[in-house]
Amino acid sequence: MQEKELQDLQPIDRLNIRSRNEAKLRQHARVIWMCGLSGAGKSTIALELEHQLFGLGYIAQVLDGDLLRSGLNKDLGFSAEDRTENLRRVAELSKLIISAGIISINAFISPTSRIRSQARSIIGHQDFIEVYVNAPINVCEQRDQKGLYEKARMGVIKDFTGIGSPFEPPVKPGIEIRTDKLDVQESVDKLLKYLLPHIEFKH
Amino acid sequence: MQEKELQDLQPIDRLNIRSRNEAKLRQHARVIWMCGLSGAGKSTIALELEHQLFGLGYIAQVLDGDLLRSGLNKDLGFSAEDRTENLRRVAELSKLIISAGIISINAFISPTSRIRSQARSIIGHQDFIEVYVNAPINVCEQRDQKGLYEKARMGVIKDFTGIGSPFEPPVKPGIEIRTDKLDVQESVDKLLKYLLPHIEFKH
Repeated sequence: MQEKELQDLQPIDRLNIRSRNEAKLRQHARVIWMCGLSGAGKSTIALELEHQLFGLGYIAQVLDGDLLRSGLNKDLGFSAEDRTENLRRVAELSKLIISAGIISINAFISPTSRIRSQARSIIGHQDFIEVYVNAPINVCEQRDQKGLYEKARMGVIKDFTGIGSPFEPPVKPGIEIRTDKLDVQESVDKLLKYLLPHIEFKH
Repeated sequence: MQEKELQDLQPIDRLNIRSRNEAKLRQHARVIWMCGLSGAGKSTIALELEHQLFGLGYIAQVLDGDLLRSGLNKDLGFSAEDRTENLRRVAELSKLIISAGIISINAFISPTSRIRSQARSIIGHQDFIEVYVNAPINVCEQRDQKGLYEKARMGVIKDFTGIGSPFEPPVKPGIEIRTDKLDVQESVDKLLKYLLPHIEFKH
């Protein structure tokens, strides 16, 4: 094994991989970070967005709470500390995904400003796009697809965001999607229009 | 938001994303898991392999100890328990990467059969390709690019694989690369020849 090769390969390639892959895939990788209450429609929009992006020739990865908590983060609970660690790992994971030139679509309640700041800081301001998927809590509670609000009201789930623990709406998100006013297609159309200038390959 | 869409989208898309992306990228995603002593050349080979694969039109992501331990897994140390958790997360992460149709090239000491079995079991037998990057410990120790063997010999690093804690060679790896006998290019050529039938897009 040649020492020169060993020394030279690592720093050069690490730096070049992302932009080289972006050029091949004809896209700029970004983390599209969707926050909002349970039932606001984050995962649904994330999956439909990925579907539409694929149709336009883009490669993205969808991450959401259910997926992560059944795998990578299954050692974590829902205490404030574990939620912070959950989203720290998600942010680090997303950073890896964009380092390969892939778009990361993240659907996580991410209830506090602090938790979203942490994510933005890990990922880097330039690569972090904050999307507020917003529906009033009574609408989310009516949907209650997973029966979580009912459990939270009965006290079976403690610290459930919006019931036992607060959701701090983003002060200045990149874009807000009101899913009580728009259906899935309208939501994704609006989001896509906003996102495309960020991911379209320019050079 | 239409209930039907909400119900229908998730299971269908999750299952289809990988094969759909594989068809677009013209590759089959696999986890190429390289184990071996520190200094055996795992990361060097991983990066050069990625480089060669890219030249052939494939998209892969390189993961190694330094990268993961400075980010996703920076909360972990080097106790047996933390090493197991480190590689559990790496395996879960790789599983996510291949679920997007991307090849994952993993360079980790992964010292025990048990730790490698855990990874194989998380990732799935079919998608896990074990590569033993092998050089005798005296060769690795002579290279000692990071000065780790010296620190281990002086007792500054405890439980260093090969010195204070054991390395269990894989009994039946997919392929073994002897980096004391082959240089970087020869190693990667040999590995590539073995790997291509696993990742070439067939249908």
